Amino acid sequence: MERKVQEEISALVQNILSDYGNDRQVDQLDIHKQPDRDVVIDIIYKLLRVIFPGYYRDRTNRFYNIQNNLHTLMEDILFHLNEQLVIVLRYHKDYQSATDEELAAAAQNISMAFFRQIPKIRAYVDTDLQAALDGDPATSLIDEVVIAYPGLLAVTINRLAHELYLLSVPLLPRIMTEYAHSVTGIDIHPGATIGKYFFIDHGTGIVVGETTVIGDHVKVYQNVTLGALSTRDSQKLRGTKRHPTLEDNVTIYSGASVLGGETVIGKGAVIGGNAFITKSIPAGARVSVKNQEMQIKYCHTPRVQTSDLEEDSSWYYTI
Amino acid sequence: MERKVQEEISALVQNILSDYGNDRQVDQLDIHKQPDRDVVIDIIYKLLRVIFPGYYRDRTNRFYNIQNNLHTLMEDILFHLNEQLVIVLRYHKDYQSATDEELAAAAQNISMAFFRQIPKIRAYVDTDLQAALDGDPATSLIDEVVIAYPGLLAVTINRLAHELYLLSVPLLPRIMTEYAHSVTGIDIHPGATIGKYFFIDHGTGIVVGETTVIGDHVKVYQNVTLGALSTRDSQKLRGTKRHPTLEDNVTIYSGASVLGGETVIGKGAVIGGNAFITKSIPAGARVSVKNQEMQIKYCHTPRVQTSDLEEDSSWYYTI
Amino acid sequence: MERKVQEEISALVQNILSDYGNDRQVDQLDIHKQPDRDVVIDIIYKLLRVIFPGYYRDRTNRFYNIQNNLHTLMEDILFHLNEQLVIVLRYHKDYQSATDEELAAAAQNISMAFFRQIPKIRAYVDTDLQAALDGDPATSLIDEVVIAYPGLLAVTINRLAHELYLLSVPLLPRIMTEYAHSVTGIDIHPGATIGKYFFIDHGTGIVVGETTVIGDHVKVYQNVTLGALSTRDSQKLRGTKRHPTLEDNVTIYSGASVLGGETVIGKGAVIGGNAFITKSIPAGARVSVKNQEMQIKYCHTPRVQTSDLEEDSSWYYTI
Repeated sequence: MERKVQEEISALVQNILSDYGNDRQVDQLDIHKQPDRDVVIDIIYKLLRVIFPGYYRDRTNRFYNIQNNLHTLMEDILFHLNEQLVIVLRYHKDYQSATDEELAAAAQNISMAFFRQIPKIRAYVDTDLQAALDGDPATSLIDEVVIAYPGLLAVTINRLAHELYLLSVPLLPRIMTEYAHSVTGIDIHPGATIGKYFFIDHGTGIVVGETTVIGDHVKVYQNVTLGALSTRDSQKLRGTKRHPTLEDNVTIYSGASVLGGETVIGKGAVIGGNAFITKSIPAGARVSVKNQEMQIKYCHTPRVQTSDLEEDSSWYYTI
Repeated sequence: MERKVQEEISALVQNILSDYGNDRQVDQLDIHKQPDRDVVIDIIYKLLRVIFPGYYRDRTNRFYNIQNNLHTLMEDILFHLNEQLVIVLRYHKDYQSATDEELAAAAQNISMAFFRQIPKIRAYVDTDLQAALDGDPATSLIDEVVIAYPGLLAVTINRLAHELYLLSVPLLPRIMTEYAHSVTGIDIHPGATIGKYFFIDHGTGIVVGETTVIGDHVKVYQNVTLGALSTRDSQKLRGTKRHPTLEDNVTIYSGASVLGGETVIGKGAVIGGNAFITKSIPAGARVSVKNQEMQIKYCHTPRVQTSDLEEDSSWYYTI
Repeated sequence: MERKVQEEISALVQNILSDYGNDRQVDQLDIHKQPDRDVVIDIIYKLLRVIFPGYYRDRTNRFYNIQNNLHTLMEDILFHLNEQLVIVLRYHKDYQSATDEELAAAAQNISMAFFRQIPKIRAYVDTDLQAALDGDPATSLIDEVVIAYPGLLAVTINRLAHELYLLSVPLLPRIMTEYAHSVTGIDIHPGATIGKYFFIDHGTGIVVGETTVIGDHVKVYQNVTLGALSTRDSQKLRGTKRHPTLEDNVTIYSGASVLGGETVIGKGAVIGGNAFITKSIPAGARVSVKNQEMQIKYCHTPRVQTSDLEEDSSWYYTI
């Protein structure tokens, strides 16, 4: 590289280094002490192999040695999970002055408590799988749902993350659910409480907030928000119930929003597409947007040429 | 690892292994017999190299040896596709008692029938590319559309998957389209029938159901659903036409839903943003939400401080 | 492979090769001359390490050698960025007959001009981070926002891409923002102008058009479109202001659309969920959908069995 370019780069580096001295929040990081997102994703896929034994590409599995394989897999998960837990526990106020030994012991306890929930998680995921088979006329294959359905993937990762959330683990649960969000478009906060037989169809654009409570046999479609009424001045709201409660057998169709911590959708209620709900709905009710009036203009001669279809585009959007 | 931890892990492994004995659906898998999602994704990218020769990173391509390259590439795709087909054909009722030889022969026939459709798929994709160039004022570069536009990627993968769907291949078409869904946010079922010059702008949040039929020169925006009216009790609905038909030159603006198997949007019709359509619309009509009344409250002194903007947040959401 | 299969493949290859001779647009590519999306993604992550020093996995970083590390990192980015710039500048009308030396010099100048913007970009990203901490009651951890929040990732990549867009670089900025779109569901065109303290919550389904102008302290939720009124016959619209302006302290709740190049949302205005705005809104106004009437049907006995809930599904969708 020629000398002039070298000098330019040196000047730029000094420029950026001096900017690093400006005490920005983006620089307030403790190098070596952050969780490693790639390792967390690797842990997710190893946990999925435990939840769905035989899926997820460990082709060496055979039933006669599944005990050895599972033992090896669990030790591997434990090693990496402990490593990440030691890092993230420092973000927790209770551990800010803990010794390395105390952190290691706490991490080990959390990992073990988490692992003990695996059969329960599997029991729930099994019901989610059944709900997908019952709820989607486009499939009847278990393997299709497990391998290809983003809803089951997002909910399974959320069930795993939720157990770590209940164990007061900072940061890791959110990294897990944001990974699920990234690959599925389904954003479920790890704090959300979700009952059995939960089915998300299609999924993209779904948001489920931290304090949402969802009963059994609930079905949610794409672009649904289970959210808070307002989150301006939001730091005051931390820790309060800001998101709705859906009782058993509720269905929320695509594009609907259900908002507010005191909003309860009663048993068996059905919320129609694009509805905007901020008050409680009684059990068994069916709510839909009433008389959404459509304005239709006819053209005497149907015009099918793309190029001249909309010389006047003003008509079809009105306040 | 210390002895106590070893014992804890052994107990956990026994715990999970005994749960594996509970005959859950998540365990009903035939190890070694599931399709490999990573291999399917690899096949997708190799097929994209055939569709768009020269894109997708085979930098050794040169025109004088493109014949050899293509031959090698096609043999490679054939090998892996056959391997996956042999696995997934077992999910098909016609092949459940087939011999290995019969499966191999069926896989080979399907691969060949699929490959023969490649020129037709390329002809369609070529029109989709033209539709993007015509439809988006933000670009005029072919290469930008091919390399960067998620809509073209999702539709191309869908056109490939649709041919396998027509050949009655289980599972593989859905893995392909769910991969496209994951990277684009566009969820098109492989069963959907799509005409020429199809353009999806932006794309995220789009759902196109299995029995949707789309004509030529159709344009669809983000967050549009072409869906079913109801999918509760859905297993009864399998195989029926549950999703709408869009005739030629239809445009569906962002956030609109068009639902129902008997719903036909006539030639050249335009559906406005956020409209909710469950009945047929005649050719040439322009449909918009009529008089969506907005409630505007003015503050005498515009308040621009974030912190005090919404001390009363109740007003702006009402049922 | 048996002889018959070989012959079939040869016939297929000839079939596809002869289709390559049809002069389709999908074939109009200049092999060796296209930008490499994988290299561009790699550049993005290296730039993120510069923006957020210490994040993004360079575990060898230590403060005493950060100067050397940064120098090495910047040289690496420069090398690959120059390489991609030389390729994409050929798409620019000013460089179509440039010599290799002229292209190399232009690429070098653009890289340097881009690098000089890094401290400014960092200053803006720092305000975005603060806006997320202020705006989301679900977190108080800087590291959680930086590592896990898709909104900050999408906006940071957009701020980087926007500087290349301002330097008239073809194609690369769009590849960068479409990568962000793919992993976050947030589609911000590199042309959009975005002020300080920009916060996107949840994010999936957001579209921000090329000529959008956004002030400071703006907050946008999932599934919001800042779009154009009509983009049929769209090539005529290239270069015009087609997308809205949002002044300081504006909030746009989920599912709302704000459309049109002359639409200005005044300072401190709040746009409620699902609102559809195509005209300017004065400063300080609060706009919501008025009297969205809901139709509620009660069942005398709440029915909670999934299976019989919707024998009549026609009621809850009406035009």
